[in-house]
Amino acid sequence: MKVPVEIITLLKKEEKFLIMTHINPDGDAIGSSTALSLALGSVGKETLLYDRDPVPQFYRFLPGYERFTNSISSLVTGHWSLILLDCNSPERAGIDNLTFKHSIVIDHHETERDFGDIRWMDTETAATGLMVFYLIKELGIKITRDIAINLYSAISIDTGTFRYSNTTPEVLRVGAELIEAGANPYYISNSLYETWSGGRFDLLIRALNTLEIRDDIAITTVTKEMFIKTRTGPEDTENFSNFPRMIQSVRISALFREIDTGLWKVSLRSKGDVNVARIAELFDGGGHKNAAGYKIKADLESAKEALLKAVNGYCHKSQQT
Amino acid sequence: MKVPVEIITLLKKEEKFLIMTHINPDGDAIGSSTALSLALGSVGKETLLYDRDPVPQFYRFLPGYERFTNSISSLVTGHWSLILLDCNSPERAGIDNLTFKHSIVIDHHETERDFGDIRWMDTETAATGLMVFYLIKELGIKITRDIAINLYSAISIDTGTFRYSNTTPEVLRVGAELIEAGANPYYISNSLYETWSGGRFDLLIRALNTLEIRDDIAITTVTKEMFIKTRTGPEDTENFSNFPRMIQSVRISALFREIDTGLWKVSLRSKGDVNVARIAELFDGGGHKNAAGYKIKADLESAKEALLKAVNGYCHKSQQT
Repeated sequence: MKVPVEIITLLKKEEKFLIMTHINPDGDAIGSSTALSLALGSVGKETLLYDRDPVPQFYRFLPGYERFTNSISSLVTGHWSLILLDCNSPERAGIDNLTFKHSIVIDHHETERDFGDIRWMDTETAATGLMVFYLIKELGIKITRDIAINLYSAISIDTGTFRYSNTTPEVLRVGAELIEAGANPYYISNSLYETWSGGRFDLLIRALNTLEIRDDIAITTVTKEMFIKTRTGPEDTENFSNFPRMIQSVRISALFREIDTGLWKVSLRSKGDVNVARIAELFDGGGHKNAAGYKIKADLESAKEALLKAVNGYCHKSQQT
Repeated sequence: MKVPVEIITLLKKEEKFLIMTHINPDGDAIGSSTALSLALGSVGKETLLYDRDPVPQFYRFLPGYERFTNSISSLVTGHWSLILLDCNSPERAGIDNLTFKHSIVIDHHETERDFGDIRWMDTETAATGLMVFYLIKELGIKITRDIAINLYSAISIDTGTFRYSNTTPEVLRVGAELIEAGANPYYISNSLYETWSGGRFDLLIRALNTLEIRDDIAITTVTKEMFIKTRTGPEDTENFSNFPRMIQSVRISALFREIDTGLWKVSLRSKGDVNVARIAELFDGGGHKNAAGYKIKADLESAKEALLKAVNGYCHKSQQT
């Protein structure tokens, strides 16, 4: 992978970096950002790590996660250079009207906006963590055990721990290098997949109880009431939409999460060639080919119908091309 | 990994090989055996692939699995050389009183018996598939796409697709080479984990709805009535007891499956140092440290109580030693 030389030059020249990532941060967002903050910090650079939302409980095993702040008022942004990771627009990071000395975008998502002085976009890459791995190496910075754990976790999350179609020989070889640098695959998998609260597991069961399968689309729902009953929150639904994918006939799994009365966040997961980013874009959302999302204002039944209609339209169009 | 030179010499010299593996074959047994049969076949050797039990339905995506026979009467064993894979005694393969021209054992299991002219045992290795990978390379045989799929699947199964503690840098690098040789990680993971029937998924939800957690033991139940309602059978419960392990506080997950009125099969899965084989042995069952099972004749509530009592006794004893 070729790291743009302008990024290397800028990172070497500047001293103060604001590292930001997208709202509702996932493992790739948190792991790649924390790794870059640790790496730049290890060579004397000052970094501030910002996310609008807190780091979810189940990612708090990542060493250095506590560097994240969700308060932006203290930041004198004009003197700092921005590194926007795992997203490519200020809106996705939940920031607006801020000015930066320079701005660098490093991302692998398909949905693209026009922002940043230097843009490094690679939609073929499995994880932003992989791009940050090459960036750190190119900067000549040592990959410590803590950096390795963050990058290995970032790559694990975005490849389903080496199960998705983005698992390339390169991904496995980088994984091997990260184990040699100190990442422990069992510790990371256990931390990622076997540290659920009882309430979160209860929430999963309640969500699975709502399962409907229509036109090979699995639909599950999480309501505000379920959150209250199980003492959980939106971040606890991470990965829920993957479960119905176990069913052979399911092409798309959609999780409808109630944000507010009549407002839903829809998470889509697909198998094989079904590009759910294209479907999410119809609702002003975005994401990757096999994992995307959007918001919709409607009652639940209408929201479901709108999705089914969009999928049918997409499939009809795909067959014609 | 160093392949014993005597094995290379013998495989080059001889022409007829009986490849056998253990009863109730798993993915490593089937994948490594099929890969070796395909490889030796590709250089003109004659091979016969034997297992006492049929290849389970969910492993029938492996190219070449149909080479397996479970009839041994047709074999003129005295003229053939035996290669025993993923086990190290004729008893584990369910064969007795047979004679072979030569016998080679290739295995990574801990329990060892004294059998074979040439024994290649490596308990440090994640999978027999990994040993067969090096063997095929050392023989100078090309790793075709079909061989790669079998070896990648074998390694996937025995490492939980790179999640268990046996996932080493070497395992990931061999995985990378096998992808380059034609193994498709997504196709393989999908075949292994995402080909459930709708009924099986329905059964899982019903089982999860019975979840109780007592003394950090997760208890789920599958009744005969549930099988009828979901049109499923006992083999569909494979892996069910792993789900409650996702809860951080759970030390042991126990699935009670109704065999007949008042007769239960109990599957135990544990985390870390809790040895469930010791607990299963109290009920005349057995297994491994983190996966074991037994049968019990009792009404459901008494069967649960008996387990809780046994676990408490075990834990009390463990603390004393």
